[in-house]
Amino acid sequence: MQEFLEDTKKASKIIATLDTNTKNKVLLDMATAIETYSDFIIEHNKKDVQKAYEDKLNDAFIDRLILNEKRVQDMASAIRQIASQEEPVGKVLDGWTTKDGLDIQKVSIPIGIIAIIYESRPNVTSDTAALCFKSGNVCILKGGSEAINSNRAIANILREVLRLHNLPQNAIALVPDFTREGIAKLIKEDKYIDLIIPRGGEELISYISKNSYIPVIKHDKGICHIYIDKDAAHNKIIDIAINAKCQKPSACNAMETLLIHNDIAPYIIHGLYDAFIENQVVIKACTEAIKYIEVQEASEEDFFTEYLDNILNIKIVKNVNEAIEHINKYGSGHSESILSENYTVVNKFLNSIDAACVYANASTRFTDGGSFGLGAEVGISTSKLHSRGPMGIKDLTTFKYKIYGKSNIRK
Amino acid sequence: MQEFLEDTKKASKIIATLDTNTKNKVLLDMATAIETYSDFIIEHNKKDVQKAYEDKLNDAFIDRLILNEKRVQDMASAIRQIASQEEPVGKVLDGWTTKDGLDIQKVSIPIGIIAIIYESRPNVTSDTAALCFKSGNVCILKGGSEAINSNRAIANILREVLRLHNLPQNAIALVPDFTREGIAKLIKEDKYIDLIIPRGGEELISYISKNSYIPVIKHDKGICHIYIDKDAAHNKIIDIAINAKCQKPSACNAMETLLIHNDIAPYIIHGLYDAFIENQVVIKACTEAIKYIEVQEASEEDFFTEYLDNILNIKIVKNVNEAIEHINKYGSGHSESILSENYTVVNKFLNSIDAACVYANASTRFTDGGSFGLGAEVGISTSKLHSRGPMGIKDLTTFKYKIYGKSNIRK
Repeated sequence: MQEFLEDTKKASKIIATLDTNTKNKVLLDMATAIETYSDFIIEHNKKDVQKAYEDKLNDAFIDRLILNEKRVQDMASAIRQIASQEEPVGKVLDGWTTKDGLDIQKVSIPIGIIAIIYESRPNVTSDTAALCFKSGNVCILKGGSEAINSNRAIANILREVLRLHNLPQNAIALVPDFTREGIAKLIKEDKYIDLIIPRGGEELISYISKNSYIPVIKHDKGICHIYIDKDAAHNKIIDIAINAKCQKPSACNAMETLLIHNDIAPYIIHGLYDAFIENQVVIKACTEAIKYIEVQEASEEDFFTEYLDNILNIKIVKNVNEAIEHINKYGSGHSESILSENYTVVNKFLNSIDAACVYANASTRFTDGGSFGLGAEVGISTSKLHSRGPMGIKDLTTFKYKIYGKSNIRK
Repeated sequence: MQEFLEDTKKASKIIATLDTNTKNKVLLDMATAIETYSDFIIEHNKKDVQKAYEDKLNDAFIDRLILNEKRVQDMASAIRQIASQEEPVGKVLDGWTTKDGLDIQKVSIPIGIIAIIYESRPNVTSDTAALCFKSGNVCILKGGSEAINSNRAIANILREVLRLHNLPQNAIALVPDFTREGIAKLIKEDKYIDLIIPRGGEELISYISKNSYIPVIKHDKGICHIYIDKDAAHNKIIDIAINAKCQKPSACNAMETLLIHNDIAPYIIHGLYDAFIENQVVIKACTEAIKYIEVQEASEEDFFTEYLDNILNIKIVKNVNEAIEHINKYGSGHSESILSENYTVVNKFLNSIDAACVYANASTRFTDGGSFGLGAEVGISTSKLHSRGPMGIKDLTTFKYKIYGKSNIRK
């Protein structure tokens, strides 16, 4: 492990100072290589898929795991898109001259070495590697063991392109030790690794946060709410609620709990119920809501649950204050939305909710790099420092101060 | 502890949304109260000073601990200066309209609850409390046990001002449990506390980084270097080197190791030696340097040591590359400087050194909020994420995205 980390450190010094043209050339070659070796990737992916069937993993999981020509093509396109993004390194973020005559420049630089621990689709491997490379970072990738053959195939193609360009292959590194002990050791290597990004289940993220010696930016669960205020525009309610819940229930920005103002509930809850039922959504509701609709009662635990499925909690609240209180208690700091035409209430909600993304009159489903216009992202940060919400290429940089003096000494 | 944390959480909601006028009024009243109760503070400080004499702590330590009328007056002035700073909360940092017609605003917000664990002068208590209050944060203060009476007296005066303004006193909170077990518990309370800032010795910072469940921004040691290139302007070398080492050796931005290019060493090392000796600096040097000056040999460990005292390592290097390598190995990512008139060499140094502040042709002593023009600071961050270098009031904020829709649903 030590030797491996020394090697990534060396790679980091080289990658950090590459110019834009070189980086883009390499990225475009990576995209082409992914296309050229599409069959190779799919072949290795088949091993993972077969194993997943043998292990009786669920259909949704297997669907996410499968790579076909279209999906491999999408991976290549994503790399090309990343290549086309603005250079994130070397930007002068701020600059001024001090009273002592020092010229200070605050300049963006790569973070250094980033370890990404994920349990997701194989395309995360190429997306993340490309994002880190474009931003001058070395990445250490640890994907889920269920996708190990796919991830290795993809990474090896990208590493081969690095080699052809005489660049250190460990700029895109795979964790050498996949065991739990290996990971436990890795997250304590604060002399080498600058940042850990865990993307995955609650248990994984909690384990890493609690045991890491290295700064962690969590890509944790999304327990997202929509609050329908009494002054919501009636004719838009159902469209937005259905979109937030049903357009892609497995997404972290999908709604898990719908809060409804007491005064408007009698007029809209039946329509909402019918629409959700039509969309095969299983509803759980608070005692108050059960007076209107015949559904199962939601437990305290339900309100803390990220279903990622066609299940929804409904709760009736007295007013915006109770909605805010509920969200700040049960929410995960991801994406929260209010539907209301009342100016004061909307402002109160936007100012009081403690989350990365707070919406007025929109579905929560827009929280991602593409919709935000930030381009590809390594995920959605639910941490509060350095990066919040869609973590794009800019958030993969930090800064240093360059200070130009004229032989200044401090008085 | 739980009750205390619940209470700080409640305080946080109130403090986060105070308007600028209210915050400034409270801060000005705090400054006045510090002045009015100057005798009270000095009286309590005497207990700490007496104890320090009894415990035979060293003179430098006791000097830092002592409060007199002038120093109390300085504390009040610092609070007034913090009040006069620009409002850091609610700034629109960025904003754009997405392709779907959502208006996104990236807005600065307080971080929330910040625990500061420090082993420093009593004025840190009032500075930190004022900085956190101005930026809408609740602070939980844990000062050194040697200054406990002084810190309590200062905090209680500030808390009384909060009470007179009908604000929650726990917006400026003192850790209820000062024991090692109490701190061990505190740094695991990630449901309540958003950030831990340790300022102090290596052991304290390492302990907190390794055991905290909460993000940590370290205010660690400063092992700062100056590299004298062969193309340095001869007539400036001694002034800058003496300033960096001797103007305030106890500061974290003071130089600990001087690197000298091999080609220039014979011409300047004797002059430097004489100047350091005249300033009572004890020199340790590498084998190469010992050929010129009769001093003790520096050990590997010396190069890793933050002396904070009139002691200096001198090392002769082959070229700028060896200087960079040395600094990236032994430096602590704080402040590093090159003296050179060679354009290419200067740029190489500024680009290759991995530190918060990299200087060309200036003393390292300028790394602080005041010199940078950032105003008062909670300290100098040696972490790489969120904040680097002088951590001023802006760095005590984070952001959220406010997204204004027009009943948008995702296609």
